Amino acid sequence: MNIKMILRTLGHILLTESLLLVLPVLVSILYGEHDALMFLISAALCGAVGAFLSWVPGRHADSSIHAREGFVIVALAWICVSLFGAVPFILTGSIPGFFDAFFETVSGFTTTGATILTDVEVLSHGVMFWRSFTHWVGGMGVLVFMLTVVPMTGGGAVYIIRAEMPGPAPGKLVPRLKDTAKILYFLYLILTLLEVVLLCAGGMPVFDSLVHSFGTAGTGGFGIWNNSIAHYESSYIHWVICIFMLLFGVNFNLYYFLMLRHFRDVWKNDELRVYVLIVVAAVALITMNILDQYDAFSTALRDASFQVASIITTTGYVTANYDLWPEFSKTILVTLMFIGGCAGSTGGGIKVSRFILMKRVVCRGIKRMIHPRSVGVVKMDGKTAGDGVVEGAGVYLMVYCAIATGTVLLLSLDGFSFTVNFSAMASCFNNVGPGLDMVGAVGNYSAYSAFSKFVLSIVMLAGRLEIFPMLILLTTLIPRFNGGKRYGKNRSNRSSEEI
Amino acid sequence: MNIKMILRTLGHILLTESLLLVLPVLVSILYGEHDALMFLISAALCGAVGAFLSWVPGRHADSSIHAREGFVIVALAWICVSLFGAVPFILTGSIPGFFDAFFETVSGFTTTGATILTDVEVLSHGVMFWRSFTHWVGGMGVLVFMLTVVPMTGGGAVYIIRAEMPGPAPGKLVPRLKDTAKILYFLYLILTLLEVVLLCAGGMPVFDSLVHSFGTAGTGGFGIWNNSIAHYESSYIHWVICIFMLLFGVNFNLYYFLMLRHFRDVWKNDELRVYVLIVVAAVALITMNILDQYDAFSTALRDASFQVASIITTTGYVTANYDLWPEFSKTILVTLMFIGGCAGSTGGGIKVSRFILMKRVVCRGIKRMIHPRSVGVVKMDGKTAGDGVVEGAGVYLMVYCAIATGTVLLLSLDGFSFTVNFSAMASCFNNVGPGLDMVGAVGNYSAYSAFSKFVLSIVMLAGRLEIFPMLILLTTLIPRFNGGKRYGKNRSNRSSEEI
Repeated sequence: MNIKMILRTLGHILLTESLLLVLPVLVSILYGEHDALMFLISAALCGAVGAFLSWVPGRHADSSIHAREGFVIVALAWICVSLFGAVPFILTGSIPGFFDAFFETVSGFTTTGATILTDVEVLSHGVMFWRSFTHWVGGMGVLVFMLTVVPMTGGGAVYIIRAEMPGPAPGKLVPRLKDTAKILYFLYLILTLLEVVLLCAGGMPVFDSLVHSFGTAGTGGFGIWNNSIAHYESSYIHWVICIFMLLFGVNFNLYYFLMLRHFRDVWKNDELRVYVLIVVAAVALITMNILDQYDAFSTALRDASFQVASIITTTGYVTANYDLWPEFSKTILVTLMFIGGCAGSTGGGIKVSRFILMKRVVCRGIKRMIHPRSVGVVKMDGKTAGDGVVEGAGVYLMVYCAIATGTVLLLSLDGFSFTVNFSAMASCFNNVGPGLDMVGAVGNYSAYSAFSKFVLSIVMLAGRLEIFPMLILLTTLIPRFNGGKRYGKNRSNRSSEEI
Repeated sequence: MNIKMILRTLGHILLTESLLLVLPVLVSILYGEHDALMFLISAALCGAVGAFLSWVPGRHADSSIHAREGFVIVALAWICVSLFGAVPFILTGSIPGFFDAFFETVSGFTTTGATILTDVEVLSHGVMFWRSFTHWVGGMGVLVFMLTVVPMTGGGAVYIIRAEMPGPAPGKLVPRLKDTAKILYFLYLILTLLEVVLLCAGGMPVFDSLVHSFGTAGTGGFGIWNNSIAHYESSYIHWVICIFMLLFGVNFNLYYFLMLRHFRDVWKNDELRVYVLIVVAAVALITMNILDQYDAFSTALRDASFQVASIITTTGYVTANYDLWPEFSKTILVTLMFIGGCAGSTGGGIKVSRFILMKRVVCRGIKRMIHPRSVGVVKMDGKTAGDGVVEGAGVYLMVYCAIATGTVLLLSLDGFSFTVNFSAMASCFNNVGPGLDMVGAVGNYSAYSAFSKFVLSIVMLAGRLEIFPMLILLTTLIPRFNGGKRYGKNRSNRSSEEI
């Protein structure tokens, strides 16, 4: 383990965060709010710790890192960024409790959008801005953002990006990873700005447009009104946000292909087709199911579309209290939470491409049962998926189910109903935001105990990072945990040199 | 597909069932009940159809079958046996509706023990006997039972047993499969008789002892009192049933080893250790959690032990209304539903050994992420698990989750709460019986629509047969279903000759 390099990268990430913390300072000054000072203190603190960590390893430290370091760096970076991101909430008194502030910040960076605040409308503009801005930074990746700014030597960037980017097999667009990161962030910025402009055009104030675009782009879901997007009565605004949520749930590589006019690659993309199919099917089923509760078909369609887009992309904005909808519609929404967006988007969940992969693995498995001698390969977008990818899908699902079960068990200690606990787990693990009932469309997570909030914070991080960075950090801290002895000789031969 | 052989085997299985239907005739005569005639008619009908199906293929039909036929036979056999097993319920008027009677019979044979009856105490002795006897037959396997009686030529028995026996990799005890089946049924009979004797010794009437032993042995859960085992106040009876439930949740191979005095094989069995560990941990946690609600520690321990044993072995008897317990205890019970018994026992669920296998697959997967070059093998009971077994565990979990999700979605159409639907799915899919709330310890499934009852019946069958026989039957009926085109050349080359 190259601990020096881990420290240095953590230092860089905190320095980057301290720069980001300057933005809410400016916002606070603009609105003449006292919180400006608190944000400045937070930025200074974050910068000082960052500078110290960057300085510790010395100039000539070995800068090579491997897969394990990549995972550990990503896991630690997200924890550190969340810890320092919580400081302004505590200093400004917006969220005095540590576990509450940590929950809220993790929820921000992981683009979950689950809140412990019962009233968000009392927050200052600076705090509102920072809260939503964490979505924007977290959406495309905190470390990926850093890599576009800070040069990284030693070729370790590939491990970091691999560990942070969502989806079963993130692809490179251009040979240099750093350029890929820049292209992605550029597309992300353009789409965000486009949404800001369109929202302003619909009569939404500039500040509102900005924070809601952050929330949409990162598929986060933090807003500035207690009734979320339902605050705006304009049908136009609902539809704009609905469409942008869906757009941010698509693999960003496809936008790059569009830019290059490779329309065929977009049209032929399996994941996009399935994603569109699921959205259309869910909207159709829910619209039919809720029609009785609405006066007009158009309103039912709009509310169904918005909620479906919001949940499948794991954004979490709401325009209707879907808790009052029939059980069937609610169950569809809970199912969508698990599906999530496309790989390579800012959306969370298990990801559409992983479901496509799993469906194919299952088909091959059944085929092998019937014809034991058959070989059969699993293909993804025309390419053969290797054994590692196939096995990885199984391993992912196993760990996913284990964490989901453990979370519901721990949450049940607080005594709330199974529906609340299960939907809270589903919502936080998949980085959605709202769940059902107490944590539903008009609810929040304030009633949970500090312990449950901490558990949910960890689960949000695990969900955003697709589990393994957190798990590998854990196995690194507790080496015996991963039951290495089962592997006998292999372990002692190969591992010792690298650890 | 050797359709003649499938028909003949179905014929044999129905002939076997018609013989079994003679037993409730005798019980009805013994108690002087009019139902005797109806059972006789059912037996005659079943026997006639069985004889016809056995006769159709002709004497000299090709008796060779392959893997696919094995799965299809098992799936169809269970459906047929359930259809004909439902006839007496309808004829006697105990359960007039077809879907209700089918649900109850499937619940019996699959050893689920979920009921649509609101009052079981009004049933005649003959009906009570038949209802519980289906548990006993279904527990060890309908087809395995047939194989011990009817000689089967062509060597296809291996495929049938493989498709019907639970667990990731059923083992042979002795070289000849038929002998293995006989040994297992012998052990099963001995243990059942032992329980009957012990229950009688505790003052339980002989009829009650018999039906409750059937329910325990098959890990079914049908009883003869509306409040299940809580009807008996004797602590002795509670403990006897509790211990026998746990015994029937253990791999039967271990009893054979005990018989052969191979104590080391039993002691070294990984699955048994984990099974005991889970039971002890669950009992301890629940006892502590419910202590407030009880006057004495001993009563809390007894009720906790009974409910844990009943749920983890997927029996479903109850001595306490656990719906009134704290949420934590209820969530533990729901978790235990999914775990289930050991492979090779009569218990349902995902099976302890499959969890051990998945845990090792995950450990290896994490290891490979950290050290991409490492090989690592997954071991089960000292033997290396092949790639097929490892991939099979992943495929199983994927299909399992898909069916679970689909079931909850379909059930939600009836409008009951998420807790009810989820626990109903968990309980039926894992062949437990009771769920939470409306379908809880003191509830039943009568309020669900006929459609939902049919869905749950199919899910119970899928759970008992570990999914694949039902799935392969489906892909056989709808050949395009398994998306074979993905496999390109392989399919056309190899499959055509065998289909």
